[in-house]
Amino acid sequence: MKSIQSLNYSVVFNKEGHQELSSLLSSNSYSKVFILVDKNTKKYCLQKFKTKLNLDFTYELIEINSGEINKNLETCIQVWNHITNLGGDRKSVLITLGGGVITDLGGFVASCFKRGIDFINIPTTLLSMVDASVGGKTGVDLGVLKNQIGLFANPKMVVVDEDYLETLAEREIKSGTAEIIKYGLTYDKSLFDEISTNNYKNINTLIYRSIEIKNEVVLMDPKENYLRKVLNFGHTLGHAIESYFLESTKVKSLTHGEAIAIGMVCESYLSTKIFDLSIEKLKLIKKTILEIYTKVDISKNYYPEILSLLKHDKKNVNGQINFVLLNDFEDYKIDCKVSEDLILESLDFYNS
Amino acid sequence: MKSIQSLNYSVVFNKEGHQELSSLLSSNSYSKVFILVDKNTKKYCLQKFKTKLNLDFTYELIEINSGEINKNLETCIQVWNHITNLGGDRKSVLITLGGGVITDLGGFVASCFKRGIDFINIPTTLLSMVDASVGGKTGVDLGVLKNQIGLFANPKMVVVDEDYLETLAEREIKSGTAEIIKYGLTYDKSLFDEISTNNYKNINTLIYRSIEIKNEVVLMDPKENYLRKVLNFGHTLGHAIESYFLESTKVKSLTHGEAIAIGMVCESYLSTKIFDLSIEKLKLIKKTILEIYTKVDISKNYYPEILSLLKHDKKNVNGQINFVLLNDFEDYKIDCKVSEDLILESLDFYNS
Repeated sequence: MKSIQSLNYSVVFNKEGHQELSSLLSSNSYSKVFILVDKNTKKYCLQKFKTKLNLDFTYELIEINSGEINKNLETCIQVWNHITNLGGDRKSVLITLGGGVITDLGGFVASCFKRGIDFINIPTTLLSMVDASVGGKTGVDLGVLKNQIGLFANPKMVVVDEDYLETLAEREIKSGTAEIIKYGLTYDKSLFDEISTNNYKNINTLIYRSIEIKNEVVLMDPKENYLRKVLNFGHTLGHAIESYFLESTKVKSLTHGEAIAIGMVCESYLSTKIFDLSIEKLKLIKKTILEIYTKVDISKNYYPEILSLLKHDKKNVNGQINFVLLNDFEDYKIDCKVSEDLILESLDFYNS
Repeated sequence: MKSIQSLNYSVVFNKEGHQELSSLLSSNSYSKVFILVDKNTKKYCLQKFKTKLNLDFTYELIEINSGEINKNLETCIQVWNHITNLGGDRKSVLITLGGGVITDLGGFVASCFKRGIDFINIPTTLLSMVDASVGGKTGVDLGVLKNQIGLFANPKMVVVDEDYLETLAEREIKSGTAEIIKYGLTYDKSLFDEISTNNYKNINTLIYRSIEIKNEVVLMDPKENYLRKVLNFGHTLGHAIESYFLESTKVKSLTHGEAIAIGMVCESYLSTKIFDLSIEKLKLIKKTILEIYTKVDISKNYYPEILSLLKHDKKNVNGQINFVLLNDFEDYKIDCKVSEDLILESLDFYNS
């Protein structure tokens, strides 16, 4: 597959991606190579990665605990101390091998170590391939607030290879699917159709087209001043729901995709109420999403806390919550204000 | 005084600086104004700042503990939590009012909050005026390692006003003087002569010329790939000595300038040994510095730990310690390697 050129780096696929990375590492431009993994990617992806690289090179492995709950500054401090103690310097490189937690946190860690060292992303989940692989968003959570601390910083290169998905649980594949549905609803309905009818037969194409769309948006608006906000469809309510379920002791955590899927149903409802998205299309979106994701009970008791989390969303300015809504498939509106009552109604609609 | 244009911001002086800042704040481009202070700048500088601004505006004050010992990630986390709880958003601005700890840490905090908000630096110490006011280096320490975690990030504007120095202790003035001596030795000997003969009569000129020199260097090499390293003269050994005295329970801490002054004596010695700096000039440098700064006892017992700290210097690559040395006044050499024996000899020379 043809590589995708982003701001000042490329997303390179499969065999070619690993070959390019091999050349880069064997060119001796780096004084030391660090590989950041978690327990899962150490077990399932590291050997595969080394075999694919087909290169005799020395590296230092840094392992962190898995899961969003560890995507925080405490983990960053651990990694910074590791890199320091292992003799990392300004010419070191950090390879992140993992899902969004690893690539987001690793990119942030690398960008702040001695005022910035190179990093290379090898996303190993569907979610991180279609979402985190381009766009330069790095960061970690602050308490319950997702990605509150972070930077725009670009990797040196990104290698995407669907072989890493082989050992991924179905639930994790579905987590990435939500982002593909988002690209489908906002940008290219064929992706939505493919997901709803074809049961992932063309996963390669889905990944490639998703990255292509995200890259197109990011190149036009790297720092999210306007257009890039479209990528937040489903994410305003989705993030708040994800945070709530992550922190609450009463309920089990949701994956990012499960939360975003709920967010897309709710925000499609808002779209129908405020703009021209037809009721038929709204129903189709809800039906498609509920065929993929088990219905979650969002009790009315959770509403106040979810609203409060919404108010801390990074996208807010002057306390105003901003939504991306749909006027139709492939036709979106940015910076939409919605009343609290309507937000709660949209949660009722999901529950109904 | 004419403002100095840096990368994408200006250093504006005295009354004009405060007027420009007033206009910026009253233009309503910011959703919320945060002012970061420590105990000292809250007491001595905040009222002065507000009087000089002559503007009726609302702000949130964030106070942190004074001193290098608090320039760490724990303090950053406190400030990030404060800003979050006070409703900071992407259109907030952080004004840093203080010395290097406040401006370095504040710049880092702002640059990572929700992937970056504007910050404005009001340096209130001589050191931060002549050193931290331009160059875009932000950061905090990791354990004993100075500025190990940080970023290149530029403020929106910098306001420099020597009125803030009025309440500064003599020791703090001297801390800034070391950087002026550095500019003198490496770039413009008239600054060195002025310091050694004129007892700060023209402090305004010293500040202005120092910022001018630093800016010239930074504009040519913003990310410290080569030329900018000249600004590290005295800092390789100086930083290690500063870290040692900061952490050791056996000795009292030194100011940054006191440590850099020792570093300059030692590195001048290395310059004489390796390059063409004459013994007369070496003696003049040592004499001038010891007239300003009380001699410090650097016991041979400290040498091993100082050497070990040197090996973690950010400027090292492949474990090689890099020095900036002098071939003569205003004539420097970058990336010089020096044997451990000679490094220890240079400490002996300082002690002699």
